[in-house]
Parts: sequence; C-alpha cells; structure tokens
Amino acid sequence: MHILVIGAAGMVGRKLTQRLVSEGVLHGKPVDALTLVDVIEPEAPAGYAGKVTTLASDFSLPGEAEKLIATRPDVIFHLAAIVSGEAELDFDKGYRINLDGTRYLFDAIRLENQKDGYFPRVVFTSSIAVVGAPLPYPIPDDFHLTPLTSYGTQKAMSELLLADYSRRGFFDGIGIRLPTVCIRPGKPNKAASGFFSGILREPLVGQEAILPVSEDVRHWHTSPRSAVGFLIHGAGLDLSKLGWRRSLSMPGVSATVGEQIEALRRAAGEDAVKLIRRQPDEMIMNMVAGWAPGFEAKRATELGFTSEKNFDEIIQVHIEDELGGKL
Amino acid sequence: MHILVIGAAGMVGRKLTQRLVSEGVLHGKPVDALTLVDVIEPEAPAGYAGKVTTLASDFSLPGEAEKLIATRPDVIFHLAAIVSGEAELDFDKGYRINLDGTRYLFDAIRLENQKDGYFPRVVFTSSIAVVGAPLPYPIPDDFHLTPLTSYGTQKAMSELLLADYSRRGFFDGIGIRLPTVCIRPGKPNKAASGFFSGILREPLVGQEAILPVSEDVRHWHTSPRSAVGFLIHGAGLDLSKLGWRRSLSMPGVSATVGEQIEALRRAAGEDAVKLIRRQPDEMIMNMVAGWAPGFEAKRATELGFTSEKNFDEIIQVHIEDELGGKL
Repeated sequence: MHILVIGAAGMVGRKLTQRLVSEGVLHGKPVDALTLVDVIEPEAPAGYAGKVTTLASDFSLPGEAEKLIATRPDVIFHLAAIVSGEAELDFDKGYRINLDGTRYLFDAIRLENQKDGYFPRVVFTSSIAVVGAPLPYPIPDDFHLTPLTSYGTQKAMSELLLADYSRRGFFDGIGIRLPTVCIRPGKPNKAASGFFSGILREPLVGQEAILPVSEDVRHWHTSPRSAVGFLIHGAGLDLSKLGWRRSLSMPGVSATVGEQIEALRRAAGEDAVKLIRRQPDEMIMNMVAGWAPGFEAKRATELGFTSEKNFDEIIQVHIEDELGGKL
Repeated sequence: MHILVIGAAGMVGRKLTQRLVSEGVLHGKPVDALTLVDVIEPEAPAGYAGKVTTLASDFSLPGEAEKLIATRPDVIFHLAAIVSGEAELDFDKGYRINLDGTRYLFDAIRLENQKDGYFPRVVFTSSIAVVGAPLPYPIPDDFHLTPLTSYGTQKAMSELLLADYSRRGFFDGIGIRLPTVCIRPGKPNKAASGFFSGILREPLVGQEAILPVSEDVRHWHTSPRSAVGFLIHGAGLDLSKLGWRRSLSMPGVSATVGEQIEALRRAAGEDAVKLIRRQPDEMIMNMVAGWAPGFEAKRATELGFTSEKNFDEIIQVHIEDELGGKL
C-alpha cells in the first residue's frame, strides 16, 4: 500500500507518519511506500523499512498536484492548510492554499480516475471552523455551515467539493472535522486557538503562559493522538455508510478554559496554575466568541471514532506522548 | 442608480429587467442606468428612458468581470448559471460558470472595493438544490448544506463565498435560495425540474405534457413573479439584520405533483388534466427523489419575503402574466 501525506511536515502530519511507520500496516495492509509532501521538505521517518519519498512541493501551484497523483497512492491524507489566523490576515494566500490547492488535488485525482478508474481513498482534514456563532450547544450533526473566518469558509467549500467528487465517483472521500487539537506540542503557531494548548503546555514544564480570553469560554478539543486516530480510522472505514454526507464532526471534549485550568491543577498543582498570566486580547476574544462550544458528533461516534472524555485524559496523553510519561 | 444584471437573457433576468423598467425606481431611487449582460446579448427593454447597455459577455473568462465592475454599478443582480441538468452532464462547464464565474465576479468587486471603498449591493440567486435527501419536511433554516448535484454544490460554495466576502466588507451580499420557479413561461430548458412547469403550462393552452415522476412527489415552488419579487426585496433590505448568514431559503408553495394536477383541474377542467401523459424517466425520478419537499423559510418570511400560498394562486399568476388574464 502506497500512502501520500500532503502537509506531512505539520504537527498532525508528523504524528500520523510516525504512527503509520510504527504500526507498519493500515487496516491490515502493509505500508510499502510513503510519500511525504509539504511546502518545506518533511523529514524521512526513522526506522521505516518501506520506500519513502520526501518532497518540497506547493500543491497550490498548477501542475504540482498532478505530479503527486501520477504516483498513484492508494490512500491520500490531505492535511495541508494555511491556519486560521494567517488565512484571515492574508486573504489571497488563504484561498490559494486552502481552496485552490484542494481543488487542484481533487482535479488531479479526477483526471487519473477518468483515464482508467483509479480510485483512491482521500482523507481530508476539515475543521470545526466550518461553523460559527450563534451556535447551539451541543451542535447537531445536521447544523448548517456558518463559518465566521475565511479559513472556515475555505474548509466548508472544500467539504462540499469532497462530497461532490465522491458522489461523481472520482475518489472515495471522507472529511474529518477536527476539534481544536490540544495539547499541541512544540512552539505556538499562528493559529488563534494556540492559547488553549499554551495555558497547559507551558505550565506543565514550569513556564509562563498567556491567557487572552476569559475562563468561561467553552470550546471543543481533542488530543493529537486522537486526531491521528480519526485520520487512521477514516482511512479504513466503509464510506458507503456515510451516503454522500462525507464530512463528519468528530467526538471531543467540551470544556471551558476554567475547566481546563482545574484539570491542570489536578495534574500539576497550584504552582503550575499560577504560571498562567491573564492578558486579554480583543482580537482573539472576538474570534473565539464565534467558535464552537461542542458537538453532538453522533454520526462519528456511531461509526467508531473515539476521543478523550475530559481534560484529565487530554493532559495525561500529553504527559505520555510528549513528556516521557511523567512531570 | 446604476443596476447590473448578469444573466439578463434568462427567464428570471428578463422579468426582473421588465419590472425595473416598468417601476423606474428601486426602493425609492430612480433607475438611471441598466447594464444587461449574458452569454448572448440580452434585448434592450422597450420603453426605458434611462441609459441601457446590453453586452454579450462570459463572466467566467478571466478579465470579463473586471470590465463589468469597472462601470461601478450600485446594485448587482447575479443570476448567471448553468442549470442543474447541464452542470451534471458537463462537469467542467458547471464548475467554470457556476463557481469560477461567481468567484471572478466577487473578486472583481473586491479589487474595486480595496481601491476606494466601492461597496455595492450583490443579490445572488442561489437554489434549493443546496440541500439534498434525506431531508426533513419542512426543512429548517439551520439545516446543513447537503447538495446531491454538482449544480447544488456550486451554489452552496458560492453562498459561502458570498458570506465571507460580505463579512470581510468587500460588498453587501445576499443569497436568495429560489424555490423551483413554476410556471416557467416559454419552452422547456435543460433543468431537470422542467416538468413541474410543463404539466401545467402545456395543458393550460391545450397541449400535451409529459410527467416523468409519480404524483406523490412533493416539491417546493414559487411563481416567476414572486421570484422577481424576492430579488427586488433583497436589493433593498437592511442586511445587517442577517448577520453573516447571508443566504436565505425563500418562502414558497409545498405541493405534490398530484396537488398541482388538482389545481390544474380546478383552473382548466378535466380536459386539461387529460393532456398529461405519464412517461416515467428513471434519471429524473432519481434526481427528484433527492430534492427539497419544502422549507420553513422562517427568517425570510420575518424579513418580509412573500410568495403564493397554493397552486391555485401560482396558476392564476401564470394566467395573468403570460396568457393575457384568461384561458
């Protein structure tokens, strides 16, 4: 089995690659070849016996997607995106990468499909940013698409393309609406949601973190481990069960910032909590006010997607996967 | 006031033009200039005292939209589209006209907006094809976008663009989700929904019509007069009331084909009904099975959009507007 990961240098892409390599199989089939693509060349994974190709490629440039698809991957994980904050600041770049890039990719597959019936599985990472306030809580699976960012608009449009291209028989696609991934390891990125991780990640290792919103902000989270689990599960699922409604809101943890902080207190004590510094940021507060407080995720749960149940578990996953198992 | 109508040679475009000319004002402001555009040059309206420009232009060709927007219309009615049947048969053409053309238009406005704050009203004709089965009845305003045609996908994607461009302040946009327009005057077009009109239009003037589906098919209709009324109403509405949810399901008449036929019987008698010939068409039956049976249209109704209440009224409008007031 040949697997293509677009956006392989990002956090979720690297973790997905690690898991594919460590398991060596995807839904019972050996992973013989990996093609890892990003705008900067991804690192080749250590300890992988199969054939690996790493490429620096911007799939939003005409012709690039065709080259990737010419290698006929069996499964395509499409994780490439400009994050929300950047897509809001750079209008053209957001539409070029998040919408046009996705369409070039889907069209490259379509053209190969029309030659000889090539029919890969496409796993597309969408986002809870496809909805925006005012929102019910929990948000039902059949709630309409009401993005309040250009990023969310681009993801919602890509979901619609994915469904139509699947319906037309060009590929077998599934869209995974990722909750905010928390706790993100490493440095903050430009995502406006970064503080949700920061207020836990930094204090867990004795460093100060900034909280730009109030503690009653409720939001929807899952761990990096679960995010990768969603993608893996989606890659093997019988998608005929979805009909043509190919994008699913994933399960996750609905928590207020205050509840996050309480979980931090239980895991690491009062000294850790004291490292959180309140510094209200109006731009972030306004963005976050439109974000999803939580989803029913009934369809995804019935289809076997699973996440953590609370922030104690999310912190525990971070300690296990990023901090060597202990504080 | 300068008004641009793109798609002005189509049925709704012609009726909209007629109404703008006959009223001479739009929401209290005189209509000084009309620019009428379509892929074939629209006819100039008779009896119009203002400045009229008629143009053959394909706005899906790069550069064409810029030319139209350079004339700085105050209100832009965007009615141009490849219909559902054709967009399903010609994948590339559908995406080119219905999605790329719309995006070129919106981007042309954005670029003028960024020069000096040009800020027109954009009235976009969307469609009930943005939803598809399985559907509740009636469909609530917050039901998700589940198109089952490429046409519906393109309209849903355009709705998302319209909302994002409005939110970013590039123009003041509203999307009007037209019910199936019935009774369409004139000849059938390539829309798969054509028979809904045909089974009334032809028998009303003593001609045979073909019914390709069963009588229990329930669908959602409005008259051409009301469709134009929606566009006119949308052009003057204070859109701040909509927030960024800029596309609205319009009010209409939910009726089964059997109920349509009963209304025909009341209007034109048994001889007219006998002119309907049953000729089941599997492709049309399959498409129609996914279509909307009816909407709540609560938001639009509260905002003052109005339609006929039943098929007796819809037939009466046709008799008044197309048949000189009597059978």
